[in-house]
Amino acid sequence: MTTAYEQLCGRFARLANLNGAAAVLHWDAAAMMPSGGAGARAEQLATLSLLAHEMLCQAELADLLDQAEGDSDGDVLGPWERANLREMRRKWSHATALPGDLVAALSRAGSACEMVWRRAREADDFASLAPHLGEVVQLVRQGAAAKGQAFGCAPYDALLSQYEPGLGAAEIDRHFDALAAFLPGLLGRVVASQPAPMPAPERISARLQETLSRRLLDALGFDFEHGRLDVSLHPFTGGVADDVRLTTRYDEADALGSLYPALHEGGHGMYERGLPPEWRRQPVGQAMGMAMHESQSLLVEMQVSRGDAFLQYLAALLQDVAGVSGPAWEVEGLVSRVRHVARSLIRVEADEVTYPLHIIHRYRLERAMLAGDLAVADLPGAWREGMKALLDIEVPNDRDGCMQDIHWMDGAFGYFPTYTLGAMAAAQLFQTAEQALPDLPADLARGDFSRLMAWLRETVHSQGRLHGSADDLLTAVTGAPLDGAIFRSHLEKRYLGAQGISQ
Amino acid sequence: MTTAYEQLCGRFARLANLNGAAAVLHWDAAAMMPSGGAGARAEQLATLSLLAHEMLCQAELADLLDQAEGDSDGDVLGPWERANLREMRRKWSHATALPGDLVAALSRAGSACEMVWRRAREADDFASLAPHLGEVVQLVRQGAAAKGQAFGCAPYDALLSQYEPGLGAAEIDRHFDALAAFLPGLLGRVVASQPAPMPAPERISARLQETLSRRLLDALGFDFEHGRLDVSLHPFTGGVADDVRLTTRYDEADALGSLYPALHEGGHGMYERGLPPEWRRQPVGQAMGMAMHESQSLLVEMQVSRGDAFLQYLAALLQDVAGVSGPAWEVEGLVSRVRHVARSLIRVEADEVTYPLHIIHRYRLERAMLAGDLAVADLPGAWREGMKALLDIEVPNDRDGCMQDIHWMDGAFGYFPTYTLGAMAAAQLFQTAEQALPDLPADLARGDFSRLMAWLRETVHSQGRLHGSADDLLTAVTGAPLDGAIFRSHLEKRYLGAQGISQ
Repeated sequence: MTTAYEQLCGRFARLANLNGAAAVLHWDAAAMMPSGGAGARAEQLATLSLLAHEMLCQAELADLLDQAEGDSDGDVLGPWERANLREMRRKWSHATALPGDLVAALSRAGSACEMVWRRAREADDFASLAPHLGEVVQLVRQGAAAKGQAFGCAPYDALLSQYEPGLGAAEIDRHFDALAAFLPGLLGRVVASQPAPMPAPERISARLQETLSRRLLDALGFDFEHGRLDVSLHPFTGGVADDVRLTTRYDEADALGSLYPALHEGGHGMYERGLPPEWRRQPVGQAMGMAMHESQSLLVEMQVSRGDAFLQYLAALLQDVAGVSGPAWEVEGLVSRVRHVARSLIRVEADEVTYPLHIIHRYRLERAMLAGDLAVADLPGAWREGMKALLDIEVPNDRDGCMQDIHWMDGAFGYFPTYTLGAMAAAQLFQTAEQALPDLPADLARGDFSRLMAWLRETVHSQGRLHGSADDLLTAVTGAPLDGAIFRSHLEKRYLGAQGISQ
Repeated sequence: MTTAYEQLCGRFARLANLNGAAAVLHWDAAAMMPSGGAGARAEQLATLSLLAHEMLCQAELADLLDQAEGDSDGDVLGPWERANLREMRRKWSHATALPGDLVAALSRAGSACEMVWRRAREADDFASLAPHLGEVVQLVRQGAAAKGQAFGCAPYDALLSQYEPGLGAAEIDRHFDALAAFLPGLLGRVVASQPAPMPAPERISARLQETLSRRLLDALGFDFEHGRLDVSLHPFTGGVADDVRLTTRYDEADALGSLYPALHEGGHGMYERGLPPEWRRQPVGQAMGMAMHESQSLLVEMQVSRGDAFLQYLAALLQDVAGVSGPAWEVEGLVSRVRHVARSLIRVEADEVTYPLHIIHRYRLERAMLAGDLAVADLPGAWREGMKALLDIEVPNDRDGCMQDIHWMDGAFGYFPTYTLGAMAAAQLFQTAEQALPDLPADLARGDFSRLMAWLRETVHSQGRLHGSADDLLTAVTGAPLDGAIFRSHLEKRYLGAQGISQ
C-alpha cells in the first residue's frame, strides 16, 4: 500500500522530469539551436508546459494532497516530508488559482508581446509595443486578482509568491525605502571620489577567455562531470541539478566582461549542484527562491570576486593563462575597473551601487501599473522621471529606457525585486561566512573556494526548501532575517573606504 | 465545430511535440550531455515516452479515430488526409496492442540489459549478459505475439511493421535468399582481384575535417539555419525536421572515416528537411520507414560518394581545404580505400559488399530466437557458424561477435533488415535518377548535388508517408517495387568492373 504522500512524490517526480526536459530545451534554444528551429521548439515547450499544468490540475492530485495533509496531522511525516508537502500544495495552489483560459491567454499574449518587443526595441518604437504590453498588464492584473483571492492576500503579493515564497510587498517597501534613502547620496560621493578606470588595451582571445572561465569555475568547485559551460547572447544558468548548463559570452576587448558573468553563473550553478540529492525531483529539493538563488551568484560575483583577496588570485591567473601584465592587470588596475561605479541607463550593465536603484525604479513602476495608477501609455514618461529622481540620469530613448528588459513582456511581474533582495542576502551571508571562516581572505587570495563552498553547501544549498521562506533560511544561517544595514555597510566600506580601508 | 479528424490532428501535433522534445534530448545525451547527467536524462526521457504512450491510449482518441474513419467513407477527406488517418490508426494500433505492464517490463528489461551489455561487451563476458538478453527476448516474443494477434499477422511481421509498414518476412526472405546466393561468391572474386588500399599517412586535423564535412554538407544542400553538425561516439541523425542534428567523429589519422559518416548522415538529414512542411507534426508528414530513410543516406554515401564522378570533386576538395596531394589523394588512391572490400567482424565498419551478409546473418538469428528455435545461451555458437558460412570468417570472441550491436539489447528486433533493404532501394533510386538526370555525372564531378537533391525532394522526400509502404513509393518513383537485381548489378559493375568499366 503506498500512502497518499508517496503517490504524490511519484507524481511530482514525473512533473520534475517534464520541467527538467523543458529546462534543457530552453538551454539548447539559447546556446545551440539554429535559428530555423525556433518554431518547432516553441511548440515543444508549449506542449511540455501545458502537460505540466494539466498534471498539477488533475482532480486526483487535489484529493491526494487533502489526504496526505490529513495523514501528516498524525505526525507520520518527518520535517523534510512536511516541507515537501507544503511545497507541493504551493505549486498546486499557483497552478489551480488561474482559470485555464486565462493561463492560455497569458501565454499567448506574452509570446506575442515578446515578439513585437524584439522589433519595437530595435526600432525604439514604444507606440507599436504599447497595445501588446497593455494586454499583458491587463491579463496579469486579472491573474494577480484571482491568485490574491485564492490565497487571501494582496494581488501583488500573490505575484511575488511565485518567485519568493513568504515575501510581501510591505517588507520590500521597507527594504527599498531604506535603500532609496541612502543610495543616491552614496552614489554621488563614490562617483566624485573614485579613480578613473585604468585602460587595458590588451585583447584576450575567446579561446583564452574560455580557459580562464573554466579555471575559475574549477576553482569554485564546479563539477564538469555534471555540467557544461557554453556561449549565449545573455549569460544564464539552466539545465537541472545533475546537469547544470552555464553560459557566458566572449568579447576579446573585454575579458572581465566574460569572466564575471562566468563567476556569477558559477554561483548559481554551485547552488543547483549543492541541492539535497536525496530530494532530487521533489519540490522541497529545489532552491529556496529567486532571491536566495541570486544571493549565491552575487556572493561569488560581487562579494568575493570584486574583493581585494580574490583579485590577487585573478591577477596571477590572468598573467599565467593570458600572459597579460602591467599596472592595469595588477590588483589596483583590476579594482579600478571591476569596482567602477557609474550612473548608467542599462540595468544588466550596472555596478552593485547603482543596480538596486534600477530595481527600485522598476518595482515602483510595476506596482503602479498593476494597481491601475500608471497606464502603459504613460510608462515612457514615468520611466524618465524615475531615472532622473533615483539615478540623476537623462534617458535619451525608450530602447535604453522602458523597453530594455524582457521581464514585463513575458508577464513576469513581481520578479525584479528578487535581484536586489539577493544582493542584500549575499552581503549578509558573506559577513557570516567571514566570521565562520577566519582563513577566508587567505583562501580566496589563492583561489581556494573549498572552505567557503563547503560552508555554503552545508548551510544554504543542502537545505533546499526545508525552510518556508528566504527569511527563515537566512535566520537559520546568519541568526537574523534579511538585514539591509549589512548591505549598506558593505557598500560604504568597499566604495567609500570607511576607516580608510578599501576592502 | 471541429471535425473528429481535426481534433485528431491537434492530438497528434501534441504527440509530435512530445516526440520532438525527446528527439532533441536524445541528441543532447549523445553529443552534449556531461556523463553525470545520464540518470536525470533517463528519467526525463522515460517520462516523455510514458506520456506519449498515454496520449495514444486515451479512450477519446480511439473514439475519434472511429468517427473520423466513418466520416472519411463519405469522401470528406483528400488523399493526404486519408493517408494521415491511416498512419494515425497505425500508431494507435502499435501503442494499444501491448498491455501497459508489458510496455513497462520491456522498457525496464531493455534498460537493464543495455547497462549490463556495456560492461559485458567490454569484458567479453557473454555469460553475464545471457540472462538479461534472455529476458528481453522473452518479453519481445510476448509483445510480438500480442501484436500479431491484434494485427492478424505473424508475430515477426508485427515487429517489422514498427519500422517498415507493409513489409513481411516472406518478402525479406525472398530478397535475402537471393543476396545470400550470390554475395559470398562475389565477395571471393572481389577480394581476390582488388588492388591493395593505397596508404595515406598524412594526418588531417579535426578542425580541417570539420571544415571538409561542412563543405560537403553545404554541397548536399544541407541548411545550417535548420540544423547542426556535432561530434558523437557513433554518428547519427537526430532532432526534428526543422532542426536536424547531424553528428560525425574525427580521427586525425583517418579523414575519410569522418567525411563518409558526415555524407551518410547528410543523406538522412536531407530526407528530414525535405519532408512536406505542410504536414509537419502529423503522422503522414514523417519519413516512409527505416528502409527508405537508409536508402537516402546510402544513396549519398555509397551510390554517389564512392562513385568516380564525385571522387573527382572530393580529391579537389581535399587538396583545396586540407592541402593533401599525391597519388593516395587522387581519384585512384581514394578509390583504393573507399571501395576496398574485406571480410570483417564488425557490421558498422563493413563495406557495401559484405554489409548485407552481416545483416542476413542477424536477420536469421533474430528470427530463430523469436521463433524459439535458438536459445540465447546458444547465440555465440550460432553467431560463429553463421559468420563462417556467410562471410567465411572466424569469430575470435563474443565482444566482436554477437555482442557488438546494441539493437537486441534494447529489444529492437525487426530493425536490422531495413539496413539492407535501404541499400537495395538506394541502388534502384539512383539508377532512376541517372536516367532522369543525364547531366548527373558532370554535376557530381563538381560537387553539385542541386539537381539530384531537387529530384529526390520531389519524388521521395516531399511524399512523406502518402504511400502506404516503401514498395508503393518505390513503384511510384521507379516504376517497380524493390528489385534486388539492380543492387546486384550495381555491385558487380562497381566491384568486378563488368565490361571492364569501373564505375
